[in-house]
This record gives sequence, structure tokens and C-alpha cells, in this order.
Amino acid sequence: MKDMDFVTLLGLVAGTLTTISFLPQAIKTYKSRSTKDISLEMFGLFTVGVFLWLVYGLYINSLPIILANAVTFVLAFIILVLKLKHG
Amino acid sequence: MKDMDFVTLLGLVAGTLTTISFLPQAIKTYKSRSTKDISLEMFGLFTVGVFLWLVYGLYINSLPIILANAVTFVLAFIILVLKLKHG
Repeated sequence: MKDMDFVTLLGLVAGTLTTISFLPQAIKTYKSRSTKDISLEMFGLFTVGVFLWLVYGLYINSLPIILANAVTFVLAFIILVLKLKHG
Repeated sequence: MKDMDFVTLLGLVAGTLTTISFLPQAIKTYKSRSTKDISLEMFGLFTVGVFLWLVYGLYINSLPIILANAVTFVLAFIILVLKLKHG
């Protein structure tokens, strides 16, 4: 149980980092409205992939994977929409 | 066992998508040498986070998480280095 808690914590820290990392990009892109250097293919593929990670997390019942990918999905989707809007 | 295989396959597809998504961004950034619209905070936090996901995958013994994050780490690190180089 103690090991389990450490591993869950590790996953939560990992998920927090990869999730919040999309926040500065979303803010930067929203403010600058400049998306020239951002790859449409990256955020298209990434958004679909993160959604599938979310489903995977539900299947294996991993709280860190579920939480992280739910929030990451929203942020990546926002960046994708901004890219589609500003080109 | 059949369910297990489906879930592992789902994770592998998810991991393949989120992992290969970084390839077009890495290629685009390498070719254009233009990183103005890319957030340094995003790729800094993301690279550290993906490394921790890799360790998490080793702990919970999840092949999709291990494979996906090993490759994603390399690609995100390349983009981070290009961002640091070109500003």
C-alpha cells in the first residue's frame, strides 16, 4: 500500500507537469494570435492521442492517467482551435 | 487475457499518436529554425514530465507508457534544444 501510494504520487507529479506544460503554450498562443511556428499535425495527432490515453486510463483504472489526460485534452484542443483559426 | 490485449493495444495506439505527434513539430522546427511561437515553458515542463511518466510506466509495468514516453522524451528534448538555440 505504501509502494502503491508512492507510485500513484509519481504518476500524479508526472501528469501535473505534462498537463500544466500546455498552459503557458495556450496562454502564449491566445495572447499573440501567432501560430506560424506551431505544427498543425502535432496538435491534431496529439489531441486525438490524448483522448485515447484518457480511455486507456479508465480501462486500467489509473487515476494519474485519467486526471492528466482529461485536462491535457482540453488545453491541447484549445491550442489546436487557435492554430486552425490563425493558421 | 483477451481484454488485457485490447487494453494494451488501446494504450499502444494512444501512445503511438501522442508520440508521433512530436515528429512533425520537430521536423518543422528543425527546418524553419523559427521557434518564436513555441513556448519555452511548455517544452521545458513537458520534457521533465515525460521523463517522470517513463519512470511511472516502469513502476506499474505498462509497456505502452514505457515505449511512448521513451520516444516522446527524445523528440520533446530535441524541440526544447532547438527552442533554446533559436530563441
